[in-house]
Amino acid sequence: MKQLFFALALVAAPAIADPLPSWNDTAAKARIISFVDSVTDPKSDAYVTPAARIATFDNDGTLWAEQPVYFQLIYAVDQVAKMGAADPAILTSDALKAAAAKDYKALLATGKEGLVEVLRASHADMPLEQFHADVAAWLDEARHPTTGMRYDEMIYQPMLELLTYLRDQGFKTYIVSGGGIQFIRAFAEDAYGIPPEQVIGSSTTSRYEVIDGVPTIIKGGELFFVDDKAGKPVGIMHHIGRRPILAGGNSDGDFEMLEFSTAGDGARLGLIVHHTDAEREFAYDREGHIGVLNRGQDEADARGWVLIDMKNDWAKVFPKTAE
Amino acid sequence: MKQLFFALALVAAPAIADPLPSWNDTAAKARIISFVDSVTDPKSDAYVTPAARIATFDNDGTLWAEQPVYFQLIYAVDQVAKMGAADPAILTSDALKAAAAKDYKALLATGKEGLVEVLRASHADMPLEQFHADVAAWLDEARHPTTGMRYDEMIYQPMLELLTYLRDQGFKTYIVSGGGIQFIRAFAEDAYGIPPEQVIGSSTTSRYEVIDGVPTIIKGGELFFVDDKAGKPVGIMHHIGRRPILAGGNSDGDFEMLEFSTAGDGARLGLIVHHTDAEREFAYDREGHIGVLNRGQDEADARGWVLIDMKNDWAKVFPKTAE
Repeated sequence: MKQLFFALALVAAPAIADPLPSWNDTAAKARIISFVDSVTDPKSDAYVTPAARIATFDNDGTLWAEQPVYFQLIYAVDQVAKMGAADPAILTSDALKAAAAKDYKALLATGKEGLVEVLRASHADMPLEQFHADVAAWLDEARHPTTGMRYDEMIYQPMLELLTYLRDQGFKTYIVSGGGIQFIRAFAEDAYGIPPEQVIGSSTTSRYEVIDGVPTIIKGGELFFVDDKAGKPVGIMHHIGRRPILAGGNSDGDFEMLEFSTAGDGARLGLIVHHTDAEREFAYDREGHIGVLNRGQDEADARGWVLIDMKNDWAKVFPKTAE
Repeated sequence: MKQLFFALALVAAPAIADPLPSWNDTAAKARIISFVDSVTDPKSDAYVTPAARIATFDNDGTLWAEQPVYFQLIYAVDQVAKMGAADPAILTSDALKAAAAKDYKALLATGKEGLVEVLRASHADMPLEQFHADVAAWLDEARHPTTGMRYDEMIYQPMLELLTYLRDQGFKTYIVSGGGIQFIRAFAEDAYGIPPEQVIGSSTTSRYEVIDGVPTIIKGGELFFVDDKAGKPVGIMHHIGRRPILAGGNSDGDFEMLEFSTAGDGARLGLIVHHTDAEREFAYDREGHIGVLNRGQDEADARGWVLIDMKNDWAKVFPKTAE
C-alpha cells in the first residue's frame, strides 16, 4: 500500500510542479494561475471550452524587448546599410543615407516619410520567402547594441513559461503586434513556439506572380493593415473571428485589445508588462517614443487588469542571462 | 492464444476502417489515400511534419452546393426582403426593390453596382456579432428552392469525410473562399468542424467602437480583400503564412490556389470537384455565371491534379439524402 501511494505520488507530481518558475510568488503570478485554473476546471462556473481558450499577446515590449528602438527598425537600417555598401547608387535620399550610416538620429529627423522609405527599401518588392530568409540571416548575425545578445534571445523567460503553461492548459496562443506580420513569422515558431498562422500584425499588400514557372508571393510596399490600437481588436476578429479570454500587452497601443478581450462574458484576464527594471532590462513608461504606457497604468486597477511589475514579479528576465 | 489474437484484431480494427466510405473505389479515392499515407508515414521520403500539413479548400461548389446562385447572395436577398417588409422606405433603388421582390433576374440586370448595394444593405454597418446571429437565424429558416433542404445540409458528405480523415491524420483544414469570411464563420464550425480562425475569405473593412460602454466590432461596407483567383494564395500567405500541401477547389477561381499549393517541394495534392451529376446535384462546368471550370479541366492531367467526377467517384452526395 505504501508503495502504491508512492507510485501514485510520482505520477501526480508533474501536475503540481510550478508552471511559472521564473515568476516570483507575488499577486501577479497568483492571479494568472487562479484565472487559468478557473477556466480549465470543468466544475468551475467560469469553465471555458478548449476551442474558446484564445490568448493574444503583443510582441514588442511584451514578449521581447523593444529598446532602444523597435528591433524591426534596426533590421531595416541594417539591411539598407548592407544594400548601400553593395551599391551606393541606391542611397537616393537623406533617409536612406542616414540609414546606411546607421545614424538613427538623422533618420528619425527625416520624419514618417523617411521611415517609410527605409522600411520600403528593406521590406518590399521581393519574394516573401526571400524576406523570411533575410530576417533569419540577420537574426543570426546581428547583436543588440547594449546587451550584445542576439535579438531573439532578448525574449522574456517568464512570458515563455506563460505561453507554454497556457498551451499545456489547452489555450491557443497568438501574437497580435503592431510590428510586421511577416517579420515576426520569421522567428516566432522557434522563439515562442507560435506557428505562423497564429501571428497577426501590420502588413503591406502582396501579390501573386508566376515567375519563370515558379508560383511566388511578392511582398509589396503599400500599406494594407495597421495592427495597432483600435486595429488590434479589428485584426483579431479578422484573423481569429472570436474574442480572446486573455490578452497581454505593455503599452497604450495594446489598450483596445485588452479592453475588447476583457469585456466579454465570463472570466477574462488582462495583463500589462510594466517595464520597471532598469538593471536587468529597461525602465520606461509614461514618456518617450516607444512603449508609452499612460492609460493602461491609470486604469488597470479599475478594470481588473494585472500590472506586471517586471522588477518585483519576475525572478529572471532573459533565458540566457543569470537572472 | 486465439482469444488474444481476437482481442488484438478488435484493437486494430479502427486503423483499417475505410476513412472515406462515401467515395467509390475509384482512382480518385486511391490517389487521396496514397497521398495521405505517404506524407504521414515517418519512413516515407515524402513525410511531412504535422505542423506543415496544411490543407485548404474552397467553399462554394467544393464543400457545399452553389446552384442556382451562391447561397450568400440568397441570404442577402432574403435579408433585404425582410428589411423591406419591415420598412419599405429603405428600398430606395431598383436593385433593392428587385431584391425585396426576390426577383433575381431584375437584380442581376442592375449589374455589379446593384449587387454591391444589396450586399452592403444586408452585410454592413452592424455589429459583427449581430451579423453572425442573423446568418445563423437565416440558416434555421431558409430552404433551398429546388431541394427544399436547409442550406447547411447541402454540404458534400464525401468532403466531410475527407476533412475528418485529414484532421485525424494531423492536418489543419482551412476554408479559402471567394465568399465572405464572416458569413462562412457563422456555420463552418458546426457544418464542417472548421473553427473560425481557419476560415479565410473575402472581407470588408471593419472598425472598433465602444458603444454605451460595450467594446464592439462594427462590420463596415468598404471592400478590404477579394479572396478569389490570385487573391487566394495571397490570402493564404497572409493568414496562414505557409504553403499548403493539399488544396481543393471546383472552379477556375481556385486555379491559382491549386497552382501555388502544388508547386512546393515534396509531395503535393491538388483536387478539383467536377460537377457531373445532374441527378443527385447539378451538372455544370465550362459555361454559366457560377463555378466555371475551363483551365482547371484542361490542365488537371498535365499538372497531376485529381479531377473528381462527382457522378462516378461519389457514392453519396449530401449527408441527409439516401445517396
